[in-house]
Amino acid sequence: MNVENNDINDSNCLLCLHLRKKSLFEVKSFSDSILYLNEDQFFKGYCILEYKRHVKELFDLTDEARDLYIKHLSLAAKALQKTFNPDKINYELLGNKVPHLHWHIIPRFKGDPAWSDPVWSKPHNPVNPPADQMNQFVAEIQKHL
Amino acid sequence: MNVENNDINDSNCLLCLHLRKKSLFEVKSFSDSILYLNEDQFFKGYCILEYKRHVKELFDLTDEARDLYIKHLSLAAKALQKTFNPDKINYELLGNKVPHLHWHIIPRFKGDPAWSDPVWSKPHNPVNPPADQMNQFVAEIQKHL
Repeated sequence: MNVENNDINDSNCLLCLHLRKKSLFEVKSFSDSILYLNEDQFFKGYCILEYKRHVKELFDLTDEARDLYIKHLSLAAKALQKTFNPDKINYELLGNKVPHLHWHIIPRFKGDPAWSDPVWSKPHNPVNPPADQMNQFVAEIQKHL
Repeated sequence: MNVENNDINDSNCLLCLHLRKKSLFEVKSFSDSILYLNEDQFFKGYCILEYKRHVKELFDLTDEARDLYIKHLSLAAKALQKTFNPDKINYELLGNKVPHLHWHIIPRFKGDPAWSDPVWSKPHNPVNPPADQMNQFVAEIQKHL
């Protein structure tokens, strides 16, 4: 792990805190990471794959740990493909605000609000579907995992 | 490979075409992919890792091919870390416009023009440094690969 250049560590990291809480939007807990449906569904099917340990960069992982994390990213993306049948999947690991490994996995559709640009090009108010819709999305993705 | 839902294939893909051309900004040719310094250096050190074969999604790769591609992504990111000492690296695989695997690998700095937002939040005119500056960047990244 390489967090010495950052003032965020596992005791004050928002993702570490989030991972400890029970979430209604948890899709699957893998051995190394947890897949959540993103609360904001402005982009339908948007999920986040949060790494369980506080690690900043991909190259801070061992080869084995990196391969496993990417395997789970790929499984999650494939499940989103089967669930929502998007035209493309976007995979983004940023962490500028919260430097703890987490993948944004975003199904993209021709005709979605930002197509064919990155999702960040479209500022918007969060869209929070009703609970039954969220539960249905979670259950459908789980079927494909 | 799964390209049947897309009208772009290896005969009319811009990335396939780019990969066949000699580029002044090539940093390294790996077995499966080529790392280029991005021509637009509005974000200093921005590189792109283009997969040699025309493949659309991560889950279209075999486990072995995916692991190798991610290994090279990680090596490239580590080289950028050593070269530019950024505060964070951003890793993005989008492909909405060109559905051929390619990673945007972007060193991010506190105080860069879009910090701490994604780079796409900051529309800008391309910044094309003079050739000697580009050559120097390429040479410095190569030293760490």
